[in-house]
Amino acid sequence: MSVHIYRGLEGVTFAETALSEVDGLAGRVTIRGYDLRDLVGVVTFDDIVGLLFGESLPNPTERGAIAASIRAAAILPTAARSAVSHAVTIDPMDALRAATAALPSPKNTDSATALSLIGNVAGILTLHHRLRQGDPGSLSEERDSRGTSAFLLHGILGQTPTDAQVRALDAYLVTMSEHGMNASTFVARCVISTGSDMVSALAAAVGSLKGPRHGGVPGPLLHDLLAIGEASKIEPWVRDQVAQKKRILGFGHRVYKVRDPRAEVLAKASLALAQTDKEKSLCAFVQEFDAITTQTLAELKPTHNLQVNVELYAALILHLLSVPADLFTPLFAAGRTAGWCAHMIEQHGDNRLIHPEVSYVGPRGREIAGI
Amino acid sequence: MSVHIYRGLEGVTFAETALSEVDGLAGRVTIRGYDLRDLVGVVTFDDIVGLLFGESLPNPTERGAIAASIRAAAILPTAARSAVSHAVTIDPMDALRAATAALPSPKNTDSATALSLIGNVAGILTLHHRLRQGDPGSLSEERDSRGTSAFLLHGILGQTPTDAQVRALDAYLVTMSEHGMNASTFVARCVISTGSDMVSALAAAVGSLKGPRHGGVPGPLLHDLLAIGEASKIEPWVRDQVAQKKRILGFGHRVYKVRDPRAEVLAKASLALAQTDKEKSLCAFVQEFDAITTQTLAELKPTHNLQVNVELYAALILHLLSVPADLFTPLFAAGRTAGWCAHMIEQHGDNRLIHPEVSYVGPRGREIAGI
Repeated sequence: MSVHIYRGLEGVTFAETALSEVDGLAGRVTIRGYDLRDLVGVVTFDDIVGLLFGESLPNPTERGAIAASIRAAAILPTAARSAVSHAVTIDPMDALRAATAALPSPKNTDSATALSLIGNVAGILTLHHRLRQGDPGSLSEERDSRGTSAFLLHGILGQTPTDAQVRALDAYLVTMSEHGMNASTFVARCVISTGSDMVSALAAAVGSLKGPRHGGVPGPLLHDLLAIGEASKIEPWVRDQVAQKKRILGFGHRVYKVRDPRAEVLAKASLALAQTDKEKSLCAFVQEFDAITTQTLAELKPTHNLQVNVELYAALILHLLSVPADLFTPLFAAGRTAGWCAHMIEQHGDNRLIHPEVSYVGPRGREIAGI
Repeated sequence: MSVHIYRGLEGVTFAETALSEVDGLAGRVTIRGYDLRDLVGVVTFDDIVGLLFGESLPNPTERGAIAASIRAAAILPTAARSAVSHAVTIDPMDALRAATAALPSPKNTDSATALSLIGNVAGILTLHHRLRQGDPGSLSEERDSRGTSAFLLHGILGQTPTDAQVRALDAYLVTMSEHGMNASTFVARCVISTGSDMVSALAAAVGSLKGPRHGGVPGPLLHDLLAIGEASKIEPWVRDQVAQKKRILGFGHRVYKVRDPRAEVLAKASLALAQTDKEKSLCAFVQEFDAITTQTLAELKPTHNLQVNVELYAALILHLLSVPADLFTPLFAAGRTAGWCAHMIEQHGDNRLIHPEVSYVGPRGREIAGI
């Protein structure tokens, strides 16, 4: 009997969600019914957290309470703090995995735990970076009424960020906060489906996001961009990559058949952030890279429909913010922790143990020699 | 447009495997073509590791090399050792999650890394237990030609185990080493599918196994058994649980429509281990619990086909081995790490990013007030 194998589970629906809708044909993302294009640049990351866990956008008082809860949880429990201090010399994503896994297992799968975990992730990311910069002090008593993005950016830059920088990081985090079903969110739901806890699910999602087929791309992508350096070299580089059968980072997506709408909102936020000539010319270069690569891929791989995805402009805006490339994926995690936790709560509320089946193709009927 | 929702992905096949076959109708498990009933009591855990990573059972020299590799990796890297020392007072499964996540991310997804991770898990489990017993010294230089089961048991008991005890733990670990598709194995494959590493996948699988719908059952199940205490109280207890709509731990399985064959092999191994009158009467009590519960559930829930699964006799054999109840699930993890790693390598060898889809059921077309 031959069974159909849904490789990668593509095309299989396993659950309902009321969190976000990704329309890959129209090129539209909505979060709880709001178009992402209406949200980015208008609301803060703390607003999105309120929306995901409260179903409507918070008022300023509620937003302040959310930011305060997150900020309080950025002061880490001892074991997580120790995990960070043992990870100062290693990759920040590995440090984040180790430190999230060292958090105490929460009893409840609820929004209070979610806020706490969002704060824990922000605390781990910033503490790790301040420690490796040899400057932990600049983090200790920092408070900022502008919310979680300001706190994160202060920890990364080691100084008080400008309003324009905070707006740009809010644009980035709002964009990355939640995006339908994807590999790490699915892993988080799988872990919760066993009856396990939100910390176990968070650590699993972090370990999944770091993979180069998921969230691990923007850092290496920036490396490619800086290595290409000038517009005239883009097309030869793309042709060379394709000839070598190498993947062009930042292009192609399982769901989108058109341009990823997140590219558009982050491109706009990047332009708003760029002030110096150097920053403006980097934006122009990335736009050219986008246009030339799209066109060249359409010529070389006409059946693949390789469109730009979120990663190119994610790399751009974070680089403009002076975020080190190895913090790109950890910052993605800081934003996506909101979506992960919201999905955990949704899974917990209507749960069934998640695992598909495999088809056995190995040997049968072997006997142990000499028995 | 309404889509079919495969809740829990039941009935959906996502991959081929040559590792094990679980026949839920015949009640048969085979590992690389060998019936589990032929393996248990005959081969050691180190043999199964060799079989999973080498496709055939190892000869004695190969088995010795496998055990030596595992033993060497039980001496932990600094960050993992520190994670254990910060977790002395917490649940061993949470300690295992924290310490596995603190291991360095390996570059390769291969069998050498697998042996290393199996040793890491054994090292974490035993170090954590020796530290909380206040007796780390009894572990430090222990070597045992009887292999990984002897090493693990020495670490748990704090003294050299008997041959009968080592045989019993081998029976347990062989039984638990690999079992087709299940929630934690699936999570491990999902993490690898993003291009992430084996440590990230291991930590995710550990966090998934601890859930009470997956591997977290045998400890609480033993608690139930000891609380019931005598055979005359079994039937009233089962009826009371069902009346209260409580789940009877150790009964029911998604795949098996008949008795779980692992129950049979662990029952046999338990009887072989039991020596004292007290131990023999515990075995008899568990057999009665099995028979009476099966019969009473068939009467009360005739359509549910609730058969005993592996957990009842897993709890029995580990209790006979004087393993503390909170180490039942960590020892399950120690055995299953072999299967997890074998599946990671299989996924890596024929990979496609794993995630299914969701159906959006939330609001649409919302607009931000006042914008």
